[in-house]
Amino acid sequence: MHNTEVFKRLEELAKKPYDLTAPSALLVEDRLRKYSAAGPGLRLSYGTQRIDDEVMDALQRLSDECGVTEQFRTMCTGAVLNKIAGYESENRQVLHTACRDIFTESPLEPIVTADVKQQLANLEIFLTDLGTGKIKNGNGEIFTTMVQVGIGGSDLGPRAICESLKAYALPNRKVHFISNVDPGHAREVLAEVDLSRTLFNIVSKSGSTQETQANEEIVRSYLQNAGLDPALHCVAVTAKGSPMDNKENYLECFYLYDCIGGRYSTTSMVGAVILGFQIGFEAVKDFLRGASEMDRHALNPNINENIPLLMALIGIWNHNFLDYDSVAIIPYSQAMRNFPSHLQQCDMESNGKSIDRNGQSLDVKSGPIVWGGAGTNGQHAYFQLFHQGSAVVPVEFIGFVEEQADISDSLASIDSQTKLNSNLLAQSLALAIGRASNNPNKTVAGNKPNLLLAAKKLTPEIMGTILACYEAKIIFQGFAWNINSFDQEGVSLGKDMASKIISKLVETKQDDDSVEALLVDWFLNKGNC
Amino acid sequence: MHNTEVFKRLEELAKKPYDLTAPSALLVEDRLRKYSAAGPGLRLSYGTQRIDDEVMDALQRLSDECGVTEQFRTMCTGAVLNKIAGYESENRQVLHTACRDIFTESPLEPIVTADVKQQLANLEIFLTDLGTGKIKNGNGEIFTTMVQVGIGGSDLGPRAICESLKAYALPNRKVHFISNVDPGHAREVLAEVDLSRTLFNIVSKSGSTQETQANEEIVRSYLQNAGLDPALHCVAVTAKGSPMDNKENYLECFYLYDCIGGRYSTTSMVGAVILGFQIGFEAVKDFLRGASEMDRHALNPNINENIPLLMALIGIWNHNFLDYDSVAIIPYSQAMRNFPSHLQQCDMESNGKSIDRNGQSLDVKSGPIVWGGAGTNGQHAYFQLFHQGSAVVPVEFIGFVEEQADISDSLASIDSQTKLNSNLLAQSLALAIGRASNNPNKTVAGNKPNLLLAAKKLTPEIMGTILACYEAKIIFQGFAWNINSFDQEGVSLGKDMASKIISKLVETKQDDDSVEALLVDWFLNKGNC
Repeated sequence: MHNTEVFKRLEELAKKPYDLTAPSALLVEDRLRKYSAAGPGLRLSYGTQRIDDEVMDALQRLSDECGVTEQFRTMCTGAVLNKIAGYESENRQVLHTACRDIFTESPLEPIVTADVKQQLANLEIFLTDLGTGKIKNGNGEIFTTMVQVGIGGSDLGPRAICESLKAYALPNRKVHFISNVDPGHAREVLAEVDLSRTLFNIVSKSGSTQETQANEEIVRSYLQNAGLDPALHCVAVTAKGSPMDNKENYLECFYLYDCIGGRYSTTSMVGAVILGFQIGFEAVKDFLRGASEMDRHALNPNINENIPLLMALIGIWNHNFLDYDSVAIIPYSQAMRNFPSHLQQCDMESNGKSIDRNGQSLDVKSGPIVWGGAGTNGQHAYFQLFHQGSAVVPVEFIGFVEEQADISDSLASIDSQTKLNSNLLAQSLALAIGRASNNPNKTVAGNKPNLLLAAKKLTPEIMGTILACYEAKIIFQGFAWNINSFDQEGVSLGKDMASKIISKLVETKQDDDSVEALLVDWFLNKGNC
Repeated sequence: MHNTEVFKRLEELAKKPYDLTAPSALLVEDRLRKYSAAGPGLRLSYGTQRIDDEVMDALQRLSDECGVTEQFRTMCTGAVLNKIAGYESENRQVLHTACRDIFTESPLEPIVTADVKQQLANLEIFLTDLGTGKIKNGNGEIFTTMVQVGIGGSDLGPRAICESLKAYALPNRKVHFISNVDPGHAREVLAEVDLSRTLFNIVSKSGSTQETQANEEIVRSYLQNAGLDPALHCVAVTAKGSPMDNKENYLECFYLYDCIGGRYSTTSMVGAVILGFQIGFEAVKDFLRGASEMDRHALNPNINENIPLLMALIGIWNHNFLDYDSVAIIPYSQAMRNFPSHLQQCDMESNGKSIDRNGQSLDVKSGPIVWGGAGTNGQHAYFQLFHQGSAVVPVEFIGFVEEQADISDSLASIDSQTKLNSNLLAQSLALAIGRASNNPNKTVAGNKPNLLLAAKKLTPEIMGTILACYEAKIIFQGFAWNINSFDQEGVSLGKDMASKIISKLVETKQDDDSVEALLVDWFLNKGNC
């Protein structure tokens, strides 16, 4: 990538990026209207980035030369893109998009989509039976609570989505999540639920994730101690044929596939079961529809008509050319407070790579550090550094015109949603424009790139659209960097070492001068270390 | 700073930092024992940093030349350190340490500490009265729930502490937090509590924080609609003489001072009232004692005997010399999951600055980007980038030998706490050492600096110690960079712009071609934009 002409062109342009602090910089050439785009239910404003027409032309060329949207199409149609050519690797298709390609007669990859439809049909029956009371607990009562037990992709995405859509929850339905192997996590959640009315949705593709196994053991023991039959309270989401694929131990089993990675599994049964429990099957379909519409939108090779492509390429401009190493995602929505944590996983696990798809060392930086949280809260926390710090952090704002609740209990002349949005728009402009002052302590440098993703209201459908938008953005960047965004080989080392260390933590001290033993002794504050 | 001899010396040393991936790199010269330190209840291991004796000597010199611990002592004794010389600035003392300097006959700053003792005495009476039922609701019932309404420093620190110590909660006591001006936040929390048994602790130093005012209005309206008297359900924590200092509107008023900034206010009444409601007055005193012991420990100018000073200087080594722009804080403790968010504020708002204490532009980078979350969860999310990404992220691990719950309900041959800690220690080593492989996809480069802060158990006292340790670390870095870590002038610009924009959001469109009006029109998807 580093030696291509378009890369050099962008390096040249990066020496003099557009100055957002110049007089009327955001007004010239109808800039705010020009640098905006529309997609399904979603709109993007990016005039507050340090870009101009020359930069955008070069980014379009970069996208074309890397075949970004073409590759996306081959991905959606079932190409084996999760691989490193010439080396042992996972060699899998990448088909999370098939999970929502259910609204057409001609899905891009019909085989997986057909199975997905079957899973959804099973889920609909299951949810109906929970609603009618055909499925009940031992006392003949309906279930009111679902606790998802899973970690990583089986936790972050589903949790973020359920929180975002809590305003749409069915009456008397609550959801919780247990992820961490820290036993305090399970105890905290289990102390809050009525076990007899609770279903546990155990989610692990392999059926052998350490944390999830440990927490399932705790859950089953709590159920048994309460005189309840775990098999009637546990549901499984796992791969066909895994140790968890066993209806003797689970009330129901839902399936996922090798072609769907954990961090892209939110629209599979990994997310659909608990979301369906919370907001009902029809709302899950709305959620999937929103995602599906974004997937179709993302096929468009023209960056002006493709929101995730715009976001991906602007991200590359900021990261590889303007040299900003992180990106902050700030939804001005308390309901979406944990969505940045999901994206942190989805992005950093996908694009935290150092080799290309042929196993060669990369000659450019790959994925940035991704972090964030809800606004306005961030304004009272880390925004000081955005405005006056020595680091530059590009910001991706997400905002909604209307609040979720369909109620008009405005208690003041100006309602809270309006206050929220005034802050959102103000931050976008303040970061870009800055402020001159005779007092250096009041001076704000400006030129902090940011973009604004906006929708009318955070509905299930829009949540699906935003999720799929970010999935596509992340994958587009991986295609541009020519990396495999679908494996995570780096995490195996820590797992291997942990299994060595665990024996040293439980054994009494022997003559062992390995570094593992020395660190264990230091940690336990024993011996001479 | 850039021109000092010691800075140049460190720049020179940074060209060849210690190689953690060399054979036996962590074993030579008894490295793990040598590079460890002990403080009150807390221990630090930093052999997995890219440092050696020469680096540590130079860092000690840097600390001495900047007078880091001397300045800390003058801070604790009441010097006016919150200022920019020669320019309009806050000109205040910095005395959060006085909030916990209550265990000695000779506090470092006796005036504020005397007032703090009076506040604590009032709090003890208040909490006793809540316990005995002398303070009751209108129906003669005791209060079981406290909701803190506050944002920024009035939210993040108190919330992180209350979550961390939930295992020590008094029976039938729950706490919640409302911070965001997003009306969905207040609605979500208010839907979960029994209003008649709930106290609302409204926290705002100025008494006029936009978000907190808006949420207090919502709370009072909910109380009134439920037929309850807001004055009997609301408590205030504010500055003396603020609009909130009015016992006609509040059941009780507790005070804080100009010399305590929001992000350093957790050990003041801002954190003590709700923590006391949750875990009782004596446990709050334990919490304060832990913080006070760390403050005394932090006065030691010898880095080998000062944990926060070690952490501050190693942080500077990583940030200014090895050029790593962020730092991740990863407690292997679900209870501490939100502590990194508090530190994010405390650090980035303190040290996200571009001028020195004389108003001159800095010639070195100031505060890094701070982020993180609980382990093992991070291992299933962003650790892939730590191990194989192109960015290097220094990690600060926090771990506890024992779990919080005093119960032995181990359900497996190896309990979950042991599994948790095996992962903690494994990650520290894996990041440092890496892994060689013939398969480039399995190769892990190593040399990722990390440190490990360890304690026996996460008690109230240790939580206080860890909090004060990080406060001191952040302040030490500010002293070394010669910046004012105690103001936040950069955040005012967004507030000013928000008040301009709010009128445009509520007005019907007029002829207005300001950038604010154009962005509002785009956001509302109206007009020609």
